[in-house]
Amino acid sequence: MMLEDILRQVQTGELSVEEAKERLKPFDRLGFANVDLHRPKRQGFPEVVFGEGKTADQIIAIVRTLKEHHDRVLVTRVTQDKAAAVRALFPELVYHDAARLLYWKKEQAKTKETDAYIAVICAGTSDLGVAEEAAITAEMFDCEVRRFYDVGVAGIHRLFHHIEAIRAATVSIVVAGMEGALPSVVSGLVSHPVIAVPTSVGYGAHFQGLSALLTMLNSCAPGISVVNIDNGFGGGYSAALIHRLACQKG
Amino acid sequence: MMLEDILRQVQTGELSVEEAKERLKPFDRLGFANVDLHRPKRQGFPEVVFGEGKTADQIIAIVRTLKEHHDRVLVTRVTQDKAAAVRALFPELVYHDAARLLYWKKEQAKTKETDAYIAVICAGTSDLGVAEEAAITAEMFDCEVRRFYDVGVAGIHRLFHHIEAIRAATVSIVVAGMEGALPSVVSGLVSHPVIAVPTSVGYGAHFQGLSALLTMLNSCAPGISVVNIDNGFGGGYSAALIHRLACQKG
Amino acid sequence: MMLEDILRQVQTGELSVEEAKERLKPFDRLGFANVDLHRPKRQGFPEVVFGEGKTADQIIAIVRTLKEHHDRVLVTRVTQDKAAAVRALFPELVYHDAARLLYWKKEQAKTKETDAYIAVICAGTSDLGVAEEAAITAEMFDCEVRRFYDVGVAGIHRLFHHIEAIRAATVSIVVAGMEGALPSVVSGLVSHPVIAVPTSVGYGAHFQGLSALLTMLNSCAPGISVVNIDNGFGGGYSAALIHRLACQKG
Amino acid sequence: MMLEDILRQVQTGELSVEEAKERLKPFDRLGFANVDLHRPKRQGFPEVVFGEGKTADQIIAIVRTLKEHHDRVLVTRVTQDKAAAVRALFPELVYHDAARLLYWKKEQAKTKETDAYIAVICAGTSDLGVAEEAAITAEMFDCEVRRFYDVGVAGIHRLFHHIEAIRAATVSIVVAGMEGALPSVVSGLVSHPVIAVPTSVGYGAHFQGLSALLTMLNSCAPGISVVNIDNGFGGGYSAALIHRLACQKG
Amino acid sequence: MMLEDILRQVQTGELSVEEAKERLKPFDRLGFANVDLHRPKRQGFPEVVFGEGKTADQIIAIVRTLKEHHDRVLVTRVTQDKAAAVRALFPELVYHDAARLLYWKKEQAKTKETDAYIAVICAGTSDLGVAEEAAITAEMFDCEVRRFYDVGVAGIHRLFHHIEAIRAATVSIVVAGMEGALPSVVSGLVSHPVIAVPTSVGYGAHFQGLSALLTMLNSCAPGISVVNIDNGFGGGYSAALIHRLACQKG
Amino acid sequence: MMLEDILRQVQTGELSVEEAKERLKPFDRLGFANVDLHRPKRQGFPEVVFGEGKTADQIIAIVRTLKEHHDRVLVTRVTQDKAAAVRALFPELVYHDAARLLYWKKEQAKTKETDAYIAVICAGTSDLGVAEEAAITAEMFDCEVRRFYDVGVAGIHRLFHHIEAIRAATVSIVVAGMEGALPSVVSGLVSHPVIAVPTSVGYGAHFQGLSALLTMLNSCAPGISVVNIDNGFGGGYSAALIHRLACQKG
Amino acid sequence: MMLEDILRQVQTGELSVEEAKERLKPFDRLGFANVDLHRPKRQGFPEVVFGEGKTADQIIAIVRTLKEHHDRVLVTRVTQDKAAAVRALFPELVYHDAARLLYWKKEQAKTKETDAYIAVICAGTSDLGVAEEAAITAEMFDCEVRRFYDVGVAGIHRLFHHIEAIRAATVSIVVAGMEGALPSVVSGLVSHPVIAVPTSVGYGAHFQGLSALLTMLNSCAPGISVVNIDNGFGGGYSAALIHRLACQKG
Amino acid sequence: MMLEDILRQVQTGELSVEEAKERLKPFDRLGFANVDLHRPKRQGFPEVVFGEGKTADQIIAIVRTLKEHHDRVLVTRVTQDKAAAVRALFPELVYHDAARLLYWKKEQAKTKETDAYIAVICAGTSDLGVAEEAAITAEMFDCEVRRFYDVGVAGIHRLFHHIEAIRAATVSIVVAGMEGALPSVVSGLVSHPVIAVPTSVGYGAHFQGLSALLTMLNSCAPGISVVNIDNGFGGGYSAALIHRLACQKG
Repeated sequence: MMLEDILRQVQTGELSVEEAKERLKPFDRLGFANVDLHRPKRQGFPEVVFGEGKTADQIIAIVRTLKEHHDRVLVTRVTQDKAAAVRALFPELVYHDAARLLYWKKEQAKTKETDAYIAVICAGTSDLGVAEEAAITAEMFDCEVRRFYDVGVAGIHRLFHHIEAIRAATVSIVVAGMEGALPSVVSGLVSHPVIAVPTSVGYGAHFQGLSALLTMLNSCAPGISVVNIDNGFGGGYSAALIHRLACQKG
Repeated sequence: MMLEDILRQVQTGELSVEEAKERLKPFDRLGFANVDLHRPKRQGFPEVVFGEGKTADQIIAIVRTLKEHHDRVLVTRVTQDKAAAVRALFPELVYHDAARLLYWKKEQAKTKETDAYIAVICAGTSDLGVAEEAAITAEMFDCEVRRFYDVGVAGIHRLFHHIEAIRAATVSIVVAGMEGALPSVVSGLVSHPVIAVPTSVGYGAHFQGLSALLTMLNSCAPGISVVNIDNGFGGGYSAALIHRLACQKG
Repeated sequence: MMLEDILRQVQTGELSVEEAKERLKPFDRLGFANVDLHRPKRQGFPEVVFGEGKTADQIIAIVRTLKEHHDRVLVTRVTQDKAAAVRALFPELVYHDAARLLYWKKEQAKTKETDAYIAVICAGTSDLGVAEEAAITAEMFDCEVRRFYDVGVAGIHRLFHHIEAIRAATVSIVVAGMEGALPSVVSGLVSHPVIAVPTSVGYGAHFQGLSALLTMLNSCAPGISVVNIDNGFGGGYSAALIHRLACQKG
Repeated sequence: MMLEDILRQVQTGELSVEEAKERLKPFDRLGFANVDLHRPKRQGFPEVVFGEGKTADQIIAIVRTLKEHHDRVLVTRVTQDKAAAVRALFPELVYHDAARLLYWKKEQAKTKETDAYIAVICAGTSDLGVAEEAAITAEMFDCEVRRFYDVGVAGIHRLFHHIEAIRAATVSIVVAGMEGALPSVVSGLVSHPVIAVPTSVGYGAHFQGLSALLTMLNSCAPGISVVNIDNGFGGGYSAALIHRLACQKG
Repeated sequence: MMLEDILRQVQTGELSVEEAKERLKPFDRLGFANVDLHRPKRQGFPEVVFGEGKTADQIIAIVRTLKEHHDRVLVTRVTQDKAAAVRALFPELVYHDAARLLYWKKEQAKTKETDAYIAVICAGTSDLGVAEEAAITAEMFDCEVRRFYDVGVAGIHRLFHHIEAIRAATVSIVVAGMEGALPSVVSGLVSHPVIAVPTSVGYGAHFQGLSALLTMLNSCAPGISVVNIDNGFGGGYSAALIHRLACQKG
Repeated sequence: MMLEDILRQVQTGELSVEEAKERLKPFDRLGFANVDLHRPKRQGFPEVVFGEGKTADQIIAIVRTLKEHHDRVLVTRVTQDKAAAVRALFPELVYHDAARLLYWKKEQAKTKETDAYIAVICAGTSDLGVAEEAAITAEMFDCEVRRFYDVGVAGIHRLFHHIEAIRAATVSIVVAGMEGALPSVVSGLVSHPVIAVPTSVGYGAHFQGLSALLTMLNSCAPGISVVNIDNGFGGGYSAALIHRLACQKG
Repeated sequence: MMLEDILRQVQTGELSVEEAKERLKPFDRLGFANVDLHRPKRQGFPEVVFGEGKTADQIIAIVRTLKEHHDRVLVTRVTQDKAAAVRALFPELVYHDAARLLYWKKEQAKTKETDAYIAVICAGTSDLGVAEEAAITAEMFDCEVRRFYDVGVAGIHRLFHHIEAIRAATVSIVVAGMEGALPSVVSGLVSHPVIAVPTSVGYGAHFQGLSALLTMLNSCAPGISVVNIDNGFGGGYSAALIHRLACQKG
Repeated sequence: MMLEDILRQVQTGELSVEEAKERLKPFDRLGFANVDLHRPKRQGFPEVVFGEGKTADQIIAIVRTLKEHHDRVLVTRVTQDKAAAVRALFPELVYHDAARLLYWKKEQAKTKETDAYIAVICAGTSDLGVAEEAAITAEMFDCEVRRFYDVGVAGIHRLFHHIEAIRAATVSIVVAGMEGALPSVVSGLVSHPVIAVPTSVGYGAHFQGLSALLTMLNSCAPGISVVNIDNGFGGGYSAALIHRLACQKG
């Protein structure tokens, strides 16, 4: 019931002033008349819980509540121990230990509407955890994902093996540690947006990912935007938002 | 006219639904029913303009508008050239070149309500500009200010000359460059809040004020809080808010 | 003519081995058979020239060449002096001095295909140059842009005035200096991707934009990705790529 | 007995020169005639012990002494183990493990003199430990405290639920990790002083709280001053000093 | 078989178009006709595995594969535990715990072709691990190495004891922590290239090797180039490449 | 007149209580009975003025006053322009433009009491300004100084030419930019204290002297202590204090 | 005359003890018997003068002296003004303004001994100055140099055009600003040593070249060593030393 | 036997040329004729071993050797475990666990030659370990030391209690963590050299001692020089060198 309706009912006497005031309480107290300050719920978007710094008990309590009202749950940065404790009660949750993700999606008759997919690209084993965090996050948002985990700037021919499949994606998530140069090279070869995710993999003057972060921010190839170090979740989330834009209209 | 009044007039037919909607537009569009999201205007607080990056013409236009509706104006970080251009049109504005402030207050029969004052403390000539920026800012907020500009940790006896007068203040603004140790020493000797303002005065490993800033944040004397490097205005503003709290009740 | 055709003509004698080798030279030397390592030209994308560090003469030479083969030209980071020198020869180029952009687009019967637009958001006058750099860049890519330049976290009600129009955009570019908090607040209120552009506006512990950059990278609101400090062009470019994705399918 | 009295007694012979010298020893040795270099003891302020780096035995010894002469004791940064060891001997001490505080206050017929309170504001579970450190510290100083722990910039409507109660406070302590933008938003909505406390909660380019610290120092909303990263105690102490100013006069 | 041969056989009918396409697949898919994008395999260069972040099982699997096809294997940054697990299955591998290297070379009738050698220089026990990492790496590349581990700038006479032997080397690897001044001094005394390897040995303002790294980058003695902090492997590898250049022509 | 005398005269009536109080005012107000909080004036130490940020007029005023009461004056960090303005009125002042010092010492029949001297050591022309600032400062304190300006780590033989003369000094001031390794080498060859002065000479990863500063702080040769970047005055002052200790007893 | 000869002549009386002592003075004073602490003069190596911070007059004086005794002279970091002043007297010197080099080589009948060359690689106009500084430096050392200035990671196909010519070099100098990723890509494609030279070209989070420097130090492609930011001279010098090694034996 | 003697004996035939060459070997090989490049052994200076990174066995071996030839031994940065292992074999060694020093001095009839002493000053318990490291180091060098461990800038009166005793010292070692302001205050009150030792005690923006280090380098009180963070040994060593200068002449 919108403001106009309420006013009209007050006019006609259907509503007393007190009742109208009660109904307008959101106006009164918060001013949320037509403007919903809440971020609109997006269909198919999971409730996401930041697991770091929460105890297993706290996570269990949150998961229990979420599962009652939602069709999927995603908990990030969960250690193996906590995951085990949660899964003892909710064995239907899946745990990916490299990605440190704990997640669950209600089975559903998924009708594939589109061939579009997100490309998740990284150089190899060391960055795999963050890449999986990005990939699974995007999948939890019902995005199709293709993984390209065997490429890296020091052996650039491996990237070219897959370049056509990568080009066909709607958006690329490029995960890289060490010198972090991969997003620049990829972005020079594709024509879609690139989300760059620096990782803390490296040592010495790598400064826990600072070097890779700076490389990506300073890329001479435009079309790259960057998320925080090791923030696979953020990369997956941003890519999913972009991917949806591309699909919604299709 | 509050929400209840409007509703009642709708009920009685004094207001049409359309008129009511018009009046409730802030509810409608912004939801500012009882909750004013604006920072409440505080009596006697000037309109403050950040002068850096604005042209003389832009400042003149803003000053013209402000003077029409307000009894005082404060423009910060104004260069000598711009100040001259503004004062050519508004000679009643005062310019303090060390503080880089341009300001004006309508003359008023000021009735001194209280003996309370803010202490502004610094070591000497180099930090004087920032100290004056803090002091004048506080004065523009109708606070009484006492300046103690001849003290410094390398000759600590000078601080003791004034310690009783400093102690009697409601709040101290301590401005320091170089090693920035003065707030620690002052805070150890007084029992009121200390606002520390680091300055960029120094060289080499001073890193444009970073050293003084870190010193103040790490003070072992509690009761100190810190504003940005060279932010005399911010120091004066925070102190004025505190000073008002002390005076309002008096 | 693709590889298969060439081979077939060699088989049939239509092509000599030498002629075939000549035609396969890209295979031979570069291996660009089917795999075009060039970034595919995107229709309607301007040739972009990084103007910083180039002399007026160099820019003139490049512009002359580009104008012969392209329907639009964009030169970034051009000073007023250089722009004047270029425009003396090419008066059809437009110069935006706050954005430091010099640009030209061949007039065309633009048929508006879509109502979709990019939102460019910033707090005010100081960040306006970078915001315009982003907005004009996107416009040069044939994107519709709406500007929201009167908002900022310290007076959050101004943001709410426009929140519905902002929400309706495909993607937001949020430009902010000082503490750089605006992208976090915006991202919490919209459901599309947010490109955050930190600016070097600030002083003291702002460290030429580092503070705003870190704020944006650390945002607790997901869906934000970040470009380099003052990189309005990069923000506009990334947003244009995303916007196209949304429109292509429409 | 003041200097004048001593001199007069010397004049009259009541005191010998030697006796006078003995009494004037503080003059002689330290020069603390009228100027007490000690920070004046503030009634109701606890003795505060920095627990980090002290052994359980050292803390026990200090607590034993303090309890003999004072009506309250506050030990900061105490680990669970040390707290258990101290409480084995002094079970009347309370330990708050998230805040890492160990404290005791003699029961007293507290007469509530004022309705004034300090607002302690944070985004949620991760910053709760530092927020509690600030809140309990202020309470140990006999300040009334109200906690607002369910707010954060990424879901700004939650802040507006409480904005009136927050506005009514004398001073706000705003605790925030991640991007640290909350103090800017709060300060734009209230008219009292804001003490900002950055926390080390975050990862990657957060650099153990540096990002949040810089955000707060660079806030475009005036009226904010900042304490060290994770320094809940310092925030609570500064706020208590300000709160007292407001109450003393009431 | 080169492109020309293939074309000629197509012309003569020896190859069908389909067969030719198959053989030209690298052209087709990757364009690697004459241009091998792979880094050319260098005879006698071991397969190198970055051991950090890999489990013992992963290392075992890789070593098993490598040993089947290669005559030497080098695994860097292996902990003692993982080394033991690998050596339980492959006892022929050697583990150097200070250098954290695990390696194996097939015995061969080595014919010494040259007297040339690489000098590996460090100050003493603390930097020894990184120095050995460099030295063994170079040896795995069939380079002759001489170690000078008893020198340091604080007792410069020790360097002079060996200066003639050092001068006779083709290239020097100089490993240093603390202030990192050794490469400057060495480079001033020799006429061959110097590879400087900073180590993280130090404390306080050493910042985990940053100080030594900066020292080496800023050396006033030309002829020095630098690798990452603690990157003994990189130093050894670069030196081996240089050493080979010197030997190949001999 | 000391405290005891005053008391005795009060006792005898020579002084009234009021007169005594007046004389004891320093006790009363500052507590400077026997404890002089002033840094004791050291014979032969000049009044030092920090010239940076002071106008020529301010320097003239200070110099005029100082010359009336003192036998020497030292102004640091004076630009050529300001020096010229001051010397127009006080032509007896000497200006050293590389050292940016302006100074004057009353002629005196100097009786050389000792052969002891301070060694001031630097690599060459670039660091000469700071070295001279240190040397002249020490000379203004009546110290004998010997300059060794032709040495540097990249050509270490030049240092050995002078090593005996350097060893014979009481204290060495070693000034170095670039990698800043010279103090380590010198300190390894002498047995007296070394004051290291980093300079901002360098580029790139030198970070305006930070690299040289860190090198010196991390020296593995003990006996080195460090002053701020480019702080020739501080180095000269510290060395003069040490030199005096060595001479006073002689 | 070596030590043994001297001793023998003393034995035979051909030399008196005094004469022998005189001749052994280098032993006596400096200990330069057989150990020449001087860096050995390398044939064909120019005298190099660091021009920054030297006046035109100082450079003229040095050049005059050098030209008398040497067959080539190289002055680095010379501004246009100073170069003009020097060339007014020595018109035979060549000035390269992008490289900021002033140099001269006596004409000589150069007999080309080898086809070997150094590859100097950079992305384009912005890094050209530093690349030329490296190239000319190497040429001054009589090295053959080939320039590849049209390559960059954002358009990687341009690199492949030249990859065979680059591979044939003895050593590559790779100059890059912005994200500095080029050396990683090049090093993955060649089998010779790579000297990486970061440049200060970039803005924002580039931090005057720090970003490019870190990228290069963290390269996952081994065989790269790095010199200081903008240090084209150092890169050219190191490469020349390596190149000579390769040629000497040829 | 000096050079002249050797030559004379060759002349007289007492020495054969071969014997002379043998004796002149140091000339021959190292050139250490009259110039001893070794740092001269200073009577009463202990052999110092840097214990960090050495195993207990390595320390035992070194201690065994040192004890045979020296009258004192000092091992720095020794953990409790290692100390216990060493003391099991050498129970005469003393271990100070806060200072992490392990040391031994042969008993000797010490004749006190002087009343002079070094002042070691710190604020309290947290900095005590580093202060003791400095104090014991100086004592191992036979210096008299007085400890002032109850002072700190937040309660400056405690410093004044001891100011006369501090002033009477030859040199002060001032140890401080947190904001590190103590050396500035002390240096303003004394007239002897001050060695400042920053400690890593602190948290948040203290950055492991960086804040205290910067404070001390930027002190506005001249006469302070600084050693590395937590480098109590270095502070004690430098002070001992200065103290000896003062005493030697006495």
